[in-house]
Amino acid sequence: MSWLTIPQSSHFSIANLPFGIISTPSDATPRPAIAIGDHALDLKAFTLGDGFSAAPSDVQKHAGSVFAAPTLNSFAALGRRFHRAVRQYLRAVLAFDTPHPALFRDNETLRHEALLPRAQVRNHLPMTVGDYTDFYAGKNHAFNVGSLFRGPAAALQPNYLHLPVAYHGRASSVVVSGTPVRRPWGQILRDPAAEPKVPALSPSQRLDLELEMGMFVCRENELGSPVAVDEADDYVFGYVLVNDWSARDLQAWEYIPLGPFTAKNLATSISPWVVLADALADAKGPGIANDTPLLPYLEEKARDQVLHVELEVDLITAEGDTTTISRTNSRFLLWSWPQMIAHHTISGCNLRPGDLFGSGTISGEDPTSAGCLLERTGGGKTAMQLGSGGERRFLLDGDTVVIRGWAGKEGALVGFGEVSGKILPAKPLF
Amino acid sequence: MSWLTIPQSSHFSIANLPFGIISTPSDATPRPAIAIGDHALDLKAFTLGDGFSAAPSDVQKHAGSVFAAPTLNSFAALGRRFHRAVRQYLRAVLAFDTPHPALFRDNETLRHEALLPRAQVRNHLPMTVGDYTDFYAGKNHAFNVGSLFRGPAAALQPNYLHLPVAYHGRASSVVVSGTPVRRPWGQILRDPAAEPKVPALSPSQRLDLELEMGMFVCRENELGSPVAVDEADDYVFGYVLVNDWSARDLQAWEYIPLGPFTAKNLATSISPWVVLADALADAKGPGIANDTPLLPYLEEKARDQVLHVELEVDLITAEGDTTTISRTNSRFLLWSWPQMIAHHTISGCNLRPGDLFGSGTISGEDPTSAGCLLERTGGGKTAMQLGSGGERRFLLDGDTVVIRGWAGKEGALVGFGEVSGKILPAKPLF
Repeated sequence: MSWLTIPQSSHFSIANLPFGIISTPSDATPRPAIAIGDHALDLKAFTLGDGFSAAPSDVQKHAGSVFAAPTLNSFAALGRRFHRAVRQYLRAVLAFDTPHPALFRDNETLRHEALLPRAQVRNHLPMTVGDYTDFYAGKNHAFNVGSLFRGPAAALQPNYLHLPVAYHGRASSVVVSGTPVRRPWGQILRDPAAEPKVPALSPSQRLDLELEMGMFVCRENELGSPVAVDEADDYVFGYVLVNDWSARDLQAWEYIPLGPFTAKNLATSISPWVVLADALADAKGPGIANDTPLLPYLEEKARDQVLHVELEVDLITAEGDTTTISRTNSRFLLWSWPQMIAHHTISGCNLRPGDLFGSGTISGEDPTSAGCLLERTGGGKTAMQLGSGGERRFLLDGDTVVIRGWAGKEGALVGFGEVSGKILPAKPLF
Repeated sequence: MSWLTIPQSSHFSIANLPFGIISTPSDATPRPAIAIGDHALDLKAFTLGDGFSAAPSDVQKHAGSVFAAPTLNSFAALGRRFHRAVRQYLRAVLAFDTPHPALFRDNETLRHEALLPRAQVRNHLPMTVGDYTDFYAGKNHAFNVGSLFRGPAAALQPNYLHLPVAYHGRASSVVVSGTPVRRPWGQILRDPAAEPKVPALSPSQRLDLELEMGMFVCRENELGSPVAVDEADDYVFGYVLVNDWSARDLQAWEYIPLGPFTAKNLATSISPWVVLADALADAKGPGIANDTPLLPYLEEKARDQVLHVELEVDLITAEGDTTTISRTNSRFLLWSWPQMIAHHTISGCNLRPGDLFGSGTISGEDPTSAGCLLERTGGGKTAMQLGSGGERRFLLDGDTVVIRGWAGKEGALVGFGEVSGKILPAKPLF
C-alpha cells in the first residue's frame, strides 16, 4: 500500500515500479522516471531534490549520473543488485508506512517537482538499442505459420525443438509506443502461384501485427565467452511488450534463403515502461512442454522459468470502434529468457546493455488467442469479424493496434501499460 | 606526388587518404587519423597544432570536435561535401607543391606530433556500428552455395535476380582487423543425413571465412521515407574489407526458416581504414550482368556503378606458411551500393551514420577465385592444397586469414590495407 492514491486496476501498482524515459511540456529533456499509479516519478528531479539522500551509499553515488541520462542504458549497466536496491528504496519511499516521510511524502516541494500526472508526460524509447534479436519461441505460432507456408507436415523444422530459433532484427527502427507506423512499400507477388514469379512494387497488402514480449539486456559478456544458462538471469534488465509489425507479402517473397528483411525492418514498437526482472520474479512457470532432450547448455537447474504474463490485443478502427482480437499469455513460449541468452551466446556472441530480444509471436491454442492476423485469418483466407460489423484480413490504413500485458492481481498488478501504433497510408514514392 | 616519401606499392597513396581510429603507446585515447604511405596522420594532434588553419571555414569550425572524437561517426554525419573538403585540403597539405608549406611540411614540431609511423599505431574500430546488414550480392557465391545446399536447379531462389537479398547481421561482434577469432561452440549434426536429426554440442568443425566488401553509411533517412536509388550515393561514407566468419555446420542446422544466427554472430572482422567514397569514384564499372527487368526503384540512371576492387586472400598456417587461396574482384557483385541502399529503405527502414553493409561473399568464376572455403572445397569434400604441402577443408586453430584489396595503379593505389584474424581454439565451456 502506498500513501499515494493508486487505482486498484492500475498496471503500475507499488509492486511494479517500472522504469522509462520521459519528457514534459516544461522540460523537453528526456530523463528517467518510474510509473506509479496515475503518476510518473521524475527521477532526475527526485535526485536533484535529495530524494535519494536516505538510500544506500551505492545508490546515492550513482543516482546523479544515471538518472540524469537520456536513456536507461547506464542505469541498466549497473546490474541487477543495483536495480534491486533502487527499486526497494523507491518502494519504501512510496509505502504507506514509509520510514522516510519527510523526504517525499511530506515534502510538498519535491512532490510538486518530481511527481507528475502520467497523462502529461511524453514517453521516449527507454533504451538505446544496440542489437535487436527476434526469437521464434512461440511454438503455436511457429506451427501455425509453418503450416500456412509449408503445410502441417513440415510446419516445424527439425531444429525447432532443439534450439531457440532466432534471427537478427533491425535496431534503428525500434520505436516507442504511440509512434505511427507507415505502411511499407516493397516487392510482392500479386499472384504467388503464377509462374514465372515476377514481383510488383506495391504498398504491402498484408500488413500484420506480431504480439511479442521483449527483454532488455543489462550486462555485457566478453566476445568469445558464452553465458551459462543458470547465470543468464543476471543479464536480464527487464521486459516490455513488443509489436513486431510484419509485411507478410514482402516476407513471403524475400525470406528465402536468409530470412525476413524489409518485411520486418519497417518498425518494431515497444511499450515505454521497462518492468524490471525482479518485479516479475514470481510470475514464472512452465512454458510449452518439450519432450525433446535438450543439450546441456540449454538445461536449466531451476525449471519452469517461462514468464506468465496475460496479454490482450485491441484493434481500433479509424472510426474508433474497438475489438479485442486476441487474449493469450506468454506461457505459450517454448523457451525461457535464460535459455534464449544461453543460445544467443553459445557461439561467443557478445551481448551489451541495451540489447533487445523479442520472444517471437505468442499464440495460444485457438484462433481467438492468435498473436497475429496471419494466423487468425488463415493466411488472409477467412476474414475476422470486428465488433462494429466490419472485418479484417490484414491491417487497414487508420487501424490502431493496442497490446496490453500484466501479471498479478488487482491492487498489486505488475503491468506493462500498452504498446500502440496506428497505421498511416503508404507515402507516394519519390 | 607528396613531399612525404610514399612507397610506390603503398595502398595509402596520396590518391587515397582513408580515415581510421588510432591510439599510440604514449596516448591510449582513440582518435581519428588518416593513413598516408607508411604513416598515420593523427588528426587530433593536427587540429590542435592548427593544421586546419588554412582550411575552408566549415572545416575549421568542425575539425576540433569531430577529430577529437573516439569514432568517425560524427565526422561521417557531416556529409559527403564535408568529407570532400577535408580530403581535398589534406591532399593539398601533403602535396609536393603544397600551397601551405609552413603549415605542416616545414613545421617540424607539428610533423613530429602528428605524423606517426603507422607500424607504431594501434587501430580501433573506425565507427560505432549502429546496425550491420549483410547482403548476398555475390551471384557466383549465391549460386555455388545454393548448389551445395539445394542442388544447382534450385541454387538461386526465384527472388534472387529481382532484389538484393540481405539479412540483418550482428553489430556487437563487428571487430577490427587483428582481433583474434575464437572458434565457436554450437549445435551441429555430426551426420547430416541421419534421421532423426539429433544435434550435438560441439566446437564448429566447419569454420570458414567470407570475403566481402563493406560500406559505412554517413547519412540518416527518416523512418518511413525510402531513399531514391539515384540519391543513394550521398549515403555512402566509405568502404572497408570484411571477413564475415561463418560456422557452416552451425549454419546448415539453424538457418531454416529465419536465416543464419549463431553461425555468423561469433565475429565479423573489418579493415581499419575507411576508404572514402570519393577515393573510389573512378573505380566503378559493370557488375555481373542481370537480364531481369528491374523494378523502377532499383533502376539507376547512371549505369555500371559496381565497385571494381582487386581482392586477395592469404591463409597463413600456425607454422607461418602463407598461401594465397583466392584472387577475385568486387566486380562479381550483382548490385551496386546505391541499389542495396534503395532496397534496404524501400520499406521505410531508417539508416543511420555508422550503419555497416556487407556485400555478401564475392567469388569469381572458378575455384581459385572463391570467396570462402565452402565453395573452394565443394562443401568440404575436396581439400584445398596449401603451398607448404598441407591442405584445408575448413579453417584450423592457429590459421590466420588475411584479405587485401585495392584499386588503381602503383604509385597511386587506393587500397584498404588488410583485414586479418587468427583462429583461436574453442574455449572449454563453463
